Amino acid sequence: MEIPVMSNILNKNDENAAELNSMLTSRGIFTVNLLGSPGCGKTSLLEQTVRLLKNQCNLAIVEGDLYTSKDADRLAGYGAPVVQINTRGGCHLDAAMVKAALTKLDLAAIDILVIENVGNLVCPAEFNVGEHAKVVVLSVTEGEDKPLKYPLIFRQSEAVILNKIDLLPYTSFAMDAAISDIRGLNPQASLLQTSCRTGEGLTAWTEWLKAKASQTRKQAKYDLGG
Amino acid sequence: MEIPVMSNILNKNDENAAELNSMLTSRGIFTVNLLGSPGCGKTSLLEQTVRLLKNQCNLAIVEGDLYTSKDADRLAGYGAPVVQINTRGGCHLDAAMVKAALTKLDLAAIDILVIENVGNLVCPAEFNVGEHAKVVVLSVTEGEDKPLKYPLIFRQSEAVILNKIDLLPYTSFAMDAAISDIRGLNPQASLLQTSCRTGEGLTAWTEWLKAKASQTRKQAKYDLGG
Repeated sequence: MEIPVMSNILNKNDENAAELNSMLTSRGIFTVNLLGSPGCGKTSLLEQTVRLLKNQCNLAIVEGDLYTSKDADRLAGYGAPVVQINTRGGCHLDAAMVKAALTKLDLAAIDILVIENVGNLVCPAEFNVGEHAKVVVLSVTEGEDKPLKYPLIFRQSEAVILNKIDLLPYTSFAMDAAISDIRGLNPQASLLQTSCRTGEGLTAWTEWLKAKASQTRKQAKYDLGG
Repeated sequence: MEIPVMSNILNKNDENAAELNSMLTSRGIFTVNLLGSPGCGKTSLLEQTVRLLKNQCNLAIVEGDLYTSKDADRLAGYGAPVVQINTRGGCHLDAAMVKAALTKLDLAAIDILVIENVGNLVCPAEFNVGEHAKVVVLSVTEGEDKPLKYPLIFRQSEAVILNKIDLLPYTSFAMDAAISDIRGLNPQASLLQTSCRTGEGLTAWTEWLKAKASQTRKQAKYDLGG
């Protein structure tokens, strides 16, 4: 009984996500579904991303959380509009939630939209939310074994961000093994190493975002016959 | 459609869990459902737990993971029997999975059973697996905001373990705020601070386990009219 119902839910979500994706593409809004465990540093990465990019392009953020607005509150002062989604205990965002959240943003004023999903390495990987790219953040304090233990999310992500590299000297994280396992799961993924404390690697990340945003803008113009 | 089906699944799981719990109680096997984010240190804690307790009582471990046996492999050399459950992508263990795993253990030779759940701060909190106590591990590198962001799992746990305290000097983790938030959610919870690297706090944890195991053994004798 569980499997057909789950399949119906996923099909309906895929329809909603495809519709949302078309709308976002047509408007030239590059959209990231930002994924990772609780505490891997997704919100810290967004704080630094907005700080670095706010004079170069128009970012907007959708924050997913079970009950609180803690992450949206943290981001509020950084200079990008933020909309909070509360899943009321739900373990992932879905496309319908994101669609509803987007009604609270001025889409004409957005170049890059980042949707920070619920902190969870499992369930969010199964639900598209209209994004052009999934990006997964793994903090080095979580251990190098995580890509093989949670392979779906690493397979699906266009970029993998190894975060908190300032803590590498105090952990036993085996960077070579992590990179080798990620490459094995997903040879095409962009691999970035960042520290939101020291700023290391953040420019490579913002350049990645800008390059992707430029592609989406070109696609939007092309679709318009421009 | 989703809600009644989910409710049926939970009811069926609660029945299975209650049956398993009665069986484990009658045998005097104190059973922990060990919860926490990916990389919070559940397996490291179990390595140290087995190392410290193996000459004092009989531990056994059930390991939950999506696809791999990495955690069971790590624990194999420590001197306690380990059974692996693979959820094939599933985000939590359920009571039926644990019941099947227990057929591979000699229950007569177990005092304490620890079930390490899938790394996930959300979904495992909704599925009892026959345990006497849930225990949640939060590593200080995850940030002090996590109890309020993932309240259910902290409310349901009899003990909260703040792990990786050796990394406190290198993080901005606000211990007082974390403790205050956990106390607000769950005033009765035992609060422990541990480092599996330095060994700090591990004796308090093994004493907690032994005291609980002693209660379960007494209950089993009492139920037998002893």
